Amino acid sequence: MSQPRPVDKADLPEHVRAVFDDICRTRDVPDVNNFWKHLARHPALLERTWGSLKEVMRPGALDLLTKEMLYLAVSVTNGCEYCTASHTAAARKAGMTEEMFGELLAVIGMANETNRLVNGLRVPVDPQFQTPGE
Amino acid sequence: MSQPRPVDKADLPEHVRAVFDDICRTRDVPDVNNFWKHLARHPALLERTWGSLKEVMRPGALDLLTKEMLYLAVSVTNGCEYCTASHTAAARKAGMTEEMFGELLAVIGMANETNRLVNGLRVPVDPQFQTPGE
Amino acid sequence: MSQPRPVDKADLPEHVRAVFDDICRTRDVPDVNNFWKHLARHPALLERTWGSLKEVMRPGALDLLTKEMLYLAVSVTNGCEYCTASHTAAARKAGMTEEMFGELLAVIGMANETNRLVNGLRVPVDPQFQTPGE
Amino acid sequence: MSQPRPVDKADLPEHVRAVFDDICRTRDVPDVNNFWKHLARHPALLERTWGSLKEVMRPGALDLLTKEMLYLAVSVTNGCEYCTASHTAAARKAGMTEEMFGELLAVIGMANETNRLVNGLRVPVDPQFQTPGE
Amino acid sequence: MSQPRPVDKADLPEHVRAVFDDICRTRDVPDVNNFWKHLARHPALLERTWGSLKEVMRPGALDLLTKEMLYLAVSVTNGCEYCTASHTAAARKAGMTEEMFGELLAVIGMANETNRLVNGLRVPVDPQFQTPGE
Amino acid sequence: MSQPRPVDKADLPEHVRAVFDDICRTRDVPDVNNFWKHLARHPALLERTWGSLKEVMRPGALDLLTKEMLYLAVSVTNGCEYCTASHTAAARKAGMTEEMFGELLAVIGMANETNRLVNGLRVPVDPQFQTPGE
Repeated sequence: MSQPRPVDKADLPEHVRAVFDDICRTRDVPDVNNFWKHLARHPALLERTWGSLKEVMRPGALDLLTKEMLYLAVSVTNGCEYCTASHTAAARKAGMTEEMFGELLAVIGMANETNRLVNGLRVPVDPQFQTPGE
Repeated sequence: MSQPRPVDKADLPEHVRAVFDDICRTRDVPDVNNFWKHLARHPALLERTWGSLKEVMRPGALDLLTKEMLYLAVSVTNGCEYCTASHTAAARKAGMTEEMFGELLAVIGMANETNRLVNGLRVPVDPQFQTPGE
Repeated sequence: MSQPRPVDKADLPEHVRAVFDDICRTRDVPDVNNFWKHLARHPALLERTWGSLKEVMRPGALDLLTKEMLYLAVSVTNGCEYCTASHTAAARKAGMTEEMFGELLAVIGMANETNRLVNGLRVPVDPQFQTPGE
Repeated sequence: MSQPRPVDKADLPEHVRAVFDDICRTRDVPDVNNFWKHLARHPALLERTWGSLKEVMRPGALDLLTKEMLYLAVSVTNGCEYCTASHTAAARKAGMTEEMFGELLAVIGMANETNRLVNGLRVPVDPQFQTPGE
Repeated sequence: MSQPRPVDKADLPEHVRAVFDDICRTRDVPDVNNFWKHLARHPALLERTWGSLKEVMRPGALDLLTKEMLYLAVSVTNGCEYCTASHTAAARKAGMTEEMFGELLAVIGMANETNRLVNGLRVPVDPQFQTPGE
Repeated sequence: MSQPRPVDKADLPEHVRAVFDDICRTRDVPDVNNFWKHLARHPALLERTWGSLKEVMRPGALDLLTKEMLYLAVSVTNGCEYCTASHTAAARKAGMTEEMFGELLAVIGMANETNRLVNGLRVPVDPQFQTPGE
């Protein structure tokens, strides 16, 4: 009783159920995560979000594992617990080992630290990082 | 005249100059970035930061390119301009192509978007993301 | 037993109870939220916060519903769960429909996404956005 | 010479120029902002971003002015200077007066303040904000 | 010509000029900072902000130097350049030495790093940190 | 069953147990917090983090209480619940009274508020905050 309820599958309009089916098929899972069930209360948002996510996370110049680890780095930095939990699982499924996870955390922690050292010291951008060839 | 001044190399104490030399040698560059020059006003902080960064960014279970892209994902999310500029350059040097950069941006943007959809919908963590095997 | 305790009403000093009464009267509610009960441990902070909030959230050039949705946009972006829960309720009470909530989430998500695309691309401010007429 | 260059219109592939034309037509402006010119280096990202933005910012249950002010609230909270500049301009164009802007700033400031009071006091969510009717 | 203009002193209404005078007297400075000049475009916001700031920054259980360093820690973490610049100056005026500044930066950096390690590992709060005696 | 498990002490390799012992000795506590138990799954990260934290939090130009309050200001601003809980306890242990905590919260709240007013007004840095003597 303590959370906004996700939409029940039986109550879903036809075209929303089609999104759920596409998520299950694309990810080869029997059911969608809570995220999609809650998002289903807003069908237009659900459809656009899934359409974008499917396109963005498709392996391309970057493979799926790299993309999932980047997603995790953002989610950890933002302090989004649900996103951290779900994308840690997704990264592991895509091949992230315990050792890789440890190094990922080290980089995330270090970047968050030096970002603030830079802010505190008000370091001006070096000329070589400003060239148009960037 | 409009920024806190970095420390001048000639004024550096012996052990700080040793850090600068190690940075140049490790990265194969003729001079250190503004970040290190500003940090040099606080020698203990400089030494510890370089010691940690050198260890964290050493290729291991994750290669250097992946680590630089993760660093960039954090810096872009935090809105640290200096860090974004310098780590974009570092990621390119480590092999990031224009196409990879485009996909990196897409993932960063998407993660920042869905992090907020999750916050707004207050989605509870799925049971399968809570198992101890995680 | 697992949280810092709120202050009990019977233990409240006279002038703090007056703040509670003013909150109940202003909002037409029988009791104040947990936020105010916890804040009551710091009476000066309680009084100044309520004084400011009462002034800021009074309908003016912007109506109450717009103000509550703006409050929610900030809270969702910051990932403050309590604030998201309480201001979602407040926005609904002020007239936010399910459809409006869906569009609000879409704007919040999109803004968080493009904020990072701008950071990553380091886009310079257009001259027309810098004019003094702004 | 000090910033990554935007893509030149003459060098744009056909389908990207079509996006630019659609932006100009939709917004009734003679040229696109720097954001779109920089984004054009990544055509797939440009097309998807514009497609989403066009859909999200279309007046619906919320009017354009409300949407622009919500966009601004997020951008100010995230400290994105470019986004703050461009969406302040967009909100003014959509009807935001100086007085409305003052109240918007007050709400944004207040929400960022109380978000942290809640964090610091670790206030538990009130039962009435957890009901499924939410 | 490239920034929103601050309000000119001669154009200020009587009661706003009184706020400016109080700021100068309280801080023993000949003129107010840009922050107040820009804020003066919104008199009600100016008056409330100065009223709160004057009360909050008054030495009490915490002395002024400690308060200025806390203000700086927040501003650096949020990446607010103006606030970092002005509160670094204010902290120095209140007695912050170069050595204290170096240690302040170290704590800020470290806290931002471990905050993310905690997020990434999803560490549950220890029972002893949850007791009502908190 | 609902969280990633911390490492069990009996399963710890020799050199990791040495870190745990050093934490207990340095802080004069019988057992380490959950943070360290979870971090122990990544021994290199554990060792480096403890080494840095021990050095950074050692009383120096700033005393321990000031450092703990700065740590808390960052953690509250970032919305890290675990860090807020543990560093509130640590600050109290180092001497933070209820009255000091109230003033700390007021400063944190105020700084987060004015940081956004500055962002929204796009206030340029005053010339006097840009001098090299800074």
